[in-house]
Amino acid sequence: MGEADLTTPAGARAQLLDTASAIMREGDVIDISLSELSLRSGLNSALVKYYFGNKAGLLKALLDRDWQAIVTSVDALVHKGDWGPEAKLRRHISKVVDTFYQVPYLNRLTMRLVRESDEAEARHIADSYLSPIYRAYEALIDEGVRAGVFRQVDPQLFYFTVTGAVDRFFSARLVLKHCFDQDTLTEELRDRYREHTIDIIMAGILAR
Amino acid sequence: MGEADLTTPAGARAQLLDTASAIMREGDVIDISLSELSLRSGLNSALVKYYFGNKAGLLKALLDRDWQAIVTSVDALVHKGDWGPEAKLRRHISKVVDTFYQVPYLNRLTMRLVRESDEAEARHIADSYLSPIYRAYEALIDEGVRAGVFRQVDPQLFYFTVTGAVDRFFSARLVLKHCFDQDTLTEELRDRYREHTIDIIMAGILAR
Repeated sequence: MGEADLTTPAGARAQLLDTASAIMREGDVIDISLSELSLRSGLNSALVKYYFGNKAGLLKALLDRDWQAIVTSVDALVHKGDWGPEAKLRRHISKVVDTFYQVPYLNRLTMRLVRESDEAEARHIADSYLSPIYRAYEALIDEGVRAGVFRQVDPQLFYFTVTGAVDRFFSARLVLKHCFDQDTLTEELRDRYREHTIDIIMAGILAR
Repeated sequence: MGEADLTTPAGARAQLLDTASAIMREGDVIDISLSELSLRSGLNSALVKYYFGNKAGLLKALLDRDWQAIVTSVDALVHKGDWGPEAKLRRHISKVVDTFYQVPYLNRLTMRLVRESDEAEARHIADSYLSPIYRAYEALIDEGVRAGVFRQVDPQLFYFTVTGAVDRFFSARLVLKHCFDQDTLTEELRDRYREHTIDIIMAGILAR
């Protein structure tokens, strides 16, 4: 590697993550080739080694980037003192749909990295990214039940209902393509699915 | 291969499929090694070649076995003249949960085979297994809306709500293991999730 290759352009780390994310989103895959990454980002693939150690390190950094945004947003939402539980849940579901539209690979990538990790690393992923979301659901449902707005619903199972319904939609591009001759990743379909999901799930949990 | 290896024990084909299914279910994987298959089934792995051509053929036959059962059951349900749409949908969701408890790998395996197929084969899989389920939802929701029992819900999006919520639960063993120290594949949890899913989704679609 020549000296010129060692320059680290401003924003190169973020740009590598952005490009990796775009490749997985567009290709409906949870892997990248370093040569494609280099080609599309215009950055030397030695920078992957410099910033992330190797490809596995890059994928972990991407997981971290994507989940941090979700965890931070859920956390802020739960603590919004002036919003009621119904408004919070509506907003949360809306955000989950928007997030999976942006990063439809996220659940599959998470499961892949958990699968390939040792016990300690797998638990770290669960503790950092998955458990905080679950605890937010627990808090939100508890708040709604106490306020008489929500029915008593198991937060653990509810977590799977919501994340499953949303994730499945955006990770099912192949189904849409071959069954319905449609591409999932259009803003029109995202908006329809957002409305549908909020409608069904809110009706499912609201007390009457 | 000796002559003895060419004998085809009665039920060997079904037994190979049963064993492949058990390996994928227990291991939370969507692949098998032929040596493990041979070891666990007690059958010579040359029989895979005899019945299925190769491993890809075995996986396709398994897809066929698992989906045929679902498609047949949904079809019978839609045509049950003496049941109302609400009873039919309840029963269907219950069956979907039971099915994914039995074959939690099915959605991931389907997506894998669609991904690895050429355009014609992918369309065949969609037409044979996925579209019939969607058309059943279309018929069932239409029946319910006309009867004034269901709200007007987009059947295409509803398909993703239901299959996503159910599939995600049983394919998320790693989440349950690392977040909740729990195994998904217990009958107790299956029964709780069945009740929860019917509860939320029926409340989500029923007219008031």
